[in-house]
Amino acid sequence: MLAGGSAALNALQYGATEGAAELRDVLGERLGVSGGEVIVTTGSQQGIDLVSRCLLEAGDVVVVESPTYLGSLQAFRAQEARVEAIEGDRWGLDIGRLADALSAGLRPRLVSVVSEFANPSGATLSFERRRALVDLARRYRFVILDDNPYGELRWSGTSPVGLEEIAATSADDGRNDCVVSLGSASKILAPGLRVGWLRAPEEIRRSVVTLKQATDLQTSSLDQRLVAELLGDADWMDAHLATARETYQRRCSVLLDAVLGGFGDAVDVDQPDGGMFLWVRFNRSKIDTMELFRRSIELGVAFVPGEAFGSRSGRSHAMRLCFATLKSEELRTAVRRLVRAAQPML
Amino acid sequence: MLAGGSAALNALQYGATEGAAELRDVLGERLGVSGGEVIVTTGSQQGIDLVSRCLLEAGDVVVVESPTYLGSLQAFRAQEARVEAIEGDRWGLDIGRLADALSAGLRPRLVSVVSEFANPSGATLSFERRRALVDLARRYRFVILDDNPYGELRWSGTSPVGLEEIAATSADDGRNDCVVSLGSASKILAPGLRVGWLRAPEEIRRSVVTLKQATDLQTSSLDQRLVAELLGDADWMDAHLATARETYQRRCSVLLDAVLGGFGDAVDVDQPDGGMFLWVRFNRSKIDTMELFRRSIELGVAFVPGEAFGSRSGRSHAMRLCFATLKSEELRTAVRRLVRAAQPML
Repeated sequence: MLAGGSAALNALQYGATEGAAELRDVLGERLGVSGGEVIVTTGSQQGIDLVSRCLLEAGDVVVVESPTYLGSLQAFRAQEARVEAIEGDRWGLDIGRLADALSAGLRPRLVSVVSEFANPSGATLSFERRRALVDLARRYRFVILDDNPYGELRWSGTSPVGLEEIAATSADDGRNDCVVSLGSASKILAPGLRVGWLRAPEEIRRSVVTLKQATDLQTSSLDQRLVAELLGDADWMDAHLATARETYQRRCSVLLDAVLGGFGDAVDVDQPDGGMFLWVRFNRSKIDTMELFRRSIELGVAFVPGEAFGSRSGRSHAMRLCFATLKSEELRTAVRRLVRAAQPML
Repeated sequence: MLAGGSAALNALQYGATEGAAELRDVLGERLGVSGGEVIVTTGSQQGIDLVSRCLLEAGDVVVVESPTYLGSLQAFRAQEARVEAIEGDRWGLDIGRLADALSAGLRPRLVSVVSEFANPSGATLSFERRRALVDLARRYRFVILDDNPYGELRWSGTSPVGLEEIAATSADDGRNDCVVSLGSASKILAPGLRVGWLRAPEEIRRSVVTLKQATDLQTSSLDQRLVAELLGDADWMDAHLATARETYQRRCSVLLDAVLGGFGDAVDVDQPDGGMFLWVRFNRSKIDTMELFRRSIELGVAFVPGEAFGSRSGRSHAMRLCFATLKSEELRTAVRRLVRAAQPML
């Protein structure tokens, strides 16, 4: 009842639904905004879920890039939204196709992208497409949901300007009016910590906080404290990210060499500039990767078959290989087994 | 891609949506069920929210005890449920009134209770009412949501048999068919940890897990690990709970004495056998506790006015005082200031 309380106990006590001020300030500094504009979420999965619940009614249309992250599909489906998949390529969601669909009458409430090193395709949405997407959002009055957990895992090239910044700089009043951006500590620190963050136009941010209170009151105080300490130590983070990028680049290169060495021109695969995934497509022989999965799992190797990323046809001969967790020699062993499993099907 | 991984890293890695096996086993042992029957949630608030989302469509009726916990009202309203408040007394929800309402045609999908040391009333649902409630649930086909975060904070008397056990032992096949039980580490360990748990009939449990995956993938691995270690150490927990109960009993007694000493028979208040709250009602002078709140906050004392626990009339002269966090002398100071703030209104 009286005001007070020990600061050291805060990591175990109830805190504000928006997130601990300490963490929000650290995030604001990293993102170049004020801490008050950042909402802490229980992982970016919660960000997707809260935005879905705030913006979508049953039957509302959500456009996703095909192939897409299963977790966002689950959140959209929990709201009984109608999910429309539009093909992407190595530069991300095909905005031309989206524009055609909009011209033909499609009226999405939300267009969802993983803007950098997407899961599973590894694609990064190009600057031109970003600008075009923001223009379409204004013209057709939809919200862009930009989930970007992998952007800091870039070892080559530079990140395109963020969708939120494009929206802000192109608006008459300099305020982002159509982009919700999600970030996450899962891929740069540890997924078990369950700390993500969200930026959004103020009205959406308010709805999200009200709903978050009903959803879990707040994100783990202890996790927030840990993430604030790590992200707040700029020198440590720089060194940590440099190590992560270098490690992932090396493993990516090992995996890519092994895949090309083992499968040759039976597969198409793009060389990534960052992220955690290779998106491998069997071209000529059109191997069914669900069947390949069943065979390779018997040899102790797992991957995610293309069909897991949306039910549209054309994914059944693709597979997502992750290079983030295994060492070089393990990656080579895994691909050798994968090739052995695929041999009778090639 | 290869199987493996260090066990020590599990506290920072992704885990199963249902919860870490280690924690589920510890919880199962404490609850007298198998770990597989327990789902870990991100606090019991998430349990309320997930159950609401799984069971409620817009317009569905939810019965709550009046007064009731604000957080559950928020979750029910997020589903656009119609909340019907039925009066409770010191033995909990008035089951006679509920039976009358059901006879008159009310058809709730969910009846929500805080079965022990309720927030804010401090009431514990009696054994007779529990049995009657389970009978009504079967007759009228509703689900009972039993949120019980305070039950282990009992320093006097014994807990009535749990609603879930009553449902199981009275069912033809010995299986609970109508009760969802929620528990929480927030009140017995630390609220910032965000660890709760849920038991439910299998069909509901499955829906909850599917939805939880879309909601936050999993509860913080680190928080789960900590709670598993603490709850799993039975000797430590026994000593810890004994200390908590003894402390809360002493503080409750100090607060009750101070309130009765300061306000005399201007208030009605029941002596609790546990929990964290005194529910104080001004009787004769019917003080408006919102107005009292504004006055007392200027003197540095906060409480929760009755109107925060549901909009039904008759709560405007009640207030919830929490005795859990302040020391005896602080409690006495707080009540002295409260009396001073109320003086002109008495």
